[in-house]
Amino acid sequence: MENAAPSPAWAHRTADLLEAVRARSPLVQCITNTVVQNVTANVLLALGASAAMVDVTTEAGPFARVADALLVNTGTPHAEPRAASVEAATAAVEAGTPWVLDPVAVGSLPVRTALARELLALRPTVLRGNASEVLAVLGASAGGRGVDSTVGPDDARAAAVGASDGRIVGALAVSGAVDLVVAPGTGVVRVANGTELLTRITGGGCALGAVVAAFTAVAPDDPGVAAVAATAVHTIAAELAAADAGGPGTFQPLFLDRLASLTPEDVVRTARITAEPGTTAPQGVGA
Amino acid sequence: MENAAPSPAWAHRTADLLEAVRARSPLVQCITNTVVQNVTANVLLALGASAAMVDVTTEAGPFARVADALLVNTGTPHAEPRAASVEAATAAVEAGTPWVLDPVAVGSLPVRTALARELLALRPTVLRGNASEVLAVLGASAGGRGVDSTVGPDDARAAAVGASDGRIVGALAVSGAVDLVVAPGTGVVRVANGTELLTRITGGGCALGAVVAAFTAVAPDDPGVAAVAATAVHTIAAELAAADAGGPGTFQPLFLDRLASLTPEDVVRTARITAEPGTTAPQGVGA
Amino acid sequence: MENAAPSPAWAHRTADLLEAVRARSPLVQCITNTVVQNVTANVLLALGASAAMVDVTTEAGPFARVADALLVNTGTPHAEPRAASVEAATAAVEAGTPWVLDPVAVGSLPVRTALARELLALRPTVLRGNASEVLAVLGASAGGRGVDSTVGPDDARAAAVGASDGRIVGALAVSGAVDLVVAPGTGVVRVANGTELLTRITGGGCALGAVVAAFTAVAPDDPGVAAVAATAVHTIAAELAAADAGGPGTFQPLFLDRLASLTPEDVVRTARITAEPGTTAPQGVGA
Repeated sequence: MENAAPSPAWAHRTADLLEAVRARSPLVQCITNTVVQNVTANVLLALGASAAMVDVTTEAGPFARVADALLVNTGTPHAEPRAASVEAATAAVEAGTPWVLDPVAVGSLPVRTALARELLALRPTVLRGNASEVLAVLGASAGGRGVDSTVGPDDARAAAVGASDGRIVGALAVSGAVDLVVAPGTGVVRVANGTELLTRITGGGCALGAVVAAFTAVAPDDPGVAAVAATAVHTIAAELAAADAGGPGTFQPLFLDRLASLTPEDVVRTARITAEPGTTAPQGVGA
Repeated sequence: MENAAPSPAWAHRTADLLEAVRARSPLVQCITNTVVQNVTANVLLALGASAAMVDVTTEAGPFARVADALLVNTGTPHAEPRAASVEAATAAVEAGTPWVLDPVAVGSLPVRTALARELLALRPTVLRGNASEVLAVLGASAGGRGVDSTVGPDDARAAAVGASDGRIVGALAVSGAVDLVVAPGTGVVRVANGTELLTRITGGGCALGAVVAAFTAVAPDDPGVAAVAATAVHTIAAELAAADAGGPGTFQPLFLDRLASLTPEDVVRTARITAEPGTTAPQGVGA
Repeated sequence: MENAAPSPAWAHRTADLLEAVRARSPLVQCITNTVVQNVTANVLLALGASAAMVDVTTEAGPFARVADALLVNTGTPHAEPRAASVEAATAAVEAGTPWVLDPVAVGSLPVRTALARELLALRPTVLRGNASEVLAVLGASAGGRGVDSTVGPDDARAAAVGASDGRIVGALAVSGAVDLVVAPGTGVVRVANGTELLTRITGGGCALGAVVAAFTAVAPDDPGVAAVAATAVHTIAAELAAADAGGPGTFQPLFLDRLASLTPEDVVRTARITAEPGTTAPQGVGA
């Protein structure tokens, strides 16, 4: 599988969805940790989406009904954002707003682990995290070391396939050196783009959660495809930025520039998306 | 009005106030949303001011008495910053500390809307926001879409003029493609500098609120002039930075560099400030 | 003393410890103010350490037992991080996790001053701050102006020497134009590297607190040496970055790049570390 040829169909579908995000500029509500709020908003704005960090109770729920997508990230889970997360996710489910759960550092840390499991019970559209986090929130392991994963995405493959029957989550996106996306109707798809520099900045993964949310807004019935396209756009922009960067510092502004300037042609030329045999080809493929 | 010739008097007054900010380095207390705290502090420091994010109760009020200016921004309005905002604004009023209210995303969101109206009743020195926010806090509309305005500054002109009699606020600054400042003794002034990139980063407007606060510290009796000068400095630095930027990422460090290096000559050469007929010329104009 | 020749022994020890940090990648728990969380995490990641902002109660204490080091910074001291700070520091002491106290803006601000003194009673491994803050937390003065110091490191020398008997703190690091480190077994050491640009960005000092924490993880029995090495690495990277920067904006990404790329040879070539007569030479000096 690892040596499968990149799929032009997936690359074109990704390019189409990037254009759809820019055309619609989905408003993404983010309830996320205070460490990465700024970079998350900047990534969404660079991408062409709109960002609103509405994370207080009584505002979070009503806003989730009118937002185009919702991200809930469990880092720095203080009392009010915890309550706002549940309020927002509940409202999103009721209103049909697609939403992403990013269970940052879930595992041995009790507050966020309890929160993530409460949120998982609401059936997120996409569950996104590193392999340790995804395994931990699914109850299959005790988690990683702080915010870092101690296992790779393929270690989470079996658990992800098991959870992707549509009853637990709509799709799973497991990040790592090669990212893994699993969803019913999508199958198992890998995205091999990226750069090690994404692990040398804070928010490299957390901001991807927001990008996935933005893409679910333009493909709400196809969360696996949204997760693949979001992962590819995020990691392709990062990969191209890394080529020009002098280190993790200059990488960050260049990454935002690339997100803003990335063309459909860049995507098609650069994407390394592979699908396991038996995976459904994405619908609505461009020429 | 839109075709009025830029005013040299306003450009020179702006340049003078920029030098005054740098000479005095006003200490600006900021109670602002967690998304933009970092960029707000960096903008103030680049400008030559000093920043202190004192946003806990029992500290916020006493600090507002000794700070040179105060910014209150209603984004991410958690319980303690809400209480700290009211405490600080009340103390600022009592102590004569100039203060700026930035009603981020006020309108349909109930917590911040109630907070902004409570703060407005304390009569801020300057009310600064986009047109949707300004109209909403004045009770003239239901607000925009998340943090984005759905109308332009000139749509808020009538309401701003009505509120600028000195009893509601000292001055109003309404941001948009062309920024509008209205104040008694100042009249209606427009600043046409800027760049679309300010809307592609988070904090482009929120940080301007802090810059306005810094300028009120050096022109406390003339909030309209302070708002014009702050808006011009902020948008001129942004405009010059945009010319060198590869996108919204590289724009941000270049914007800070420009704020730090901006000369009075840059201001005079670049400013596009126009005043409606009948507007009072600014006092203390340089040669 | 000011004209003492830089010490090759200290420079080599710094270079050795930089390599040790990168080899071990210590996991540094940070309970720090929301203004600088992002830059603090990015500095740690650029350095080669790992960062986790675990600042909620019931998570903070257990995490401090397994983290390699802990930073507690008193800026933006909201109720939950305050409680988490005490919980984490207490657990760090019990578990032998080295920890750093950074008493931001302590002095006249009552909430953080009470918190800092409560934490000081737990005997931090390193107390790090500007001179006003260090004097204030030791009870020797009323503090500075906001977050800025009104005195220099040498004004705090006597108080620092008095507090460095090992019973109050393990070591003191006082930042300024020339940084001062005092510790039993280390003596009085000055680091003359740096750049004025570190004072023109937010987090220049706060992030240093996290760097000191990272270095204590690889020299837990020698906090004075850890503080010297951390200060030297931080200020050398800043000094080299400043040479390429166009201002405080471009300085920041270049600083992170330099932290990531800094070689032992850079350290040895650039370090300006001087020790007062009678100071013990650092142990484990490289050739």
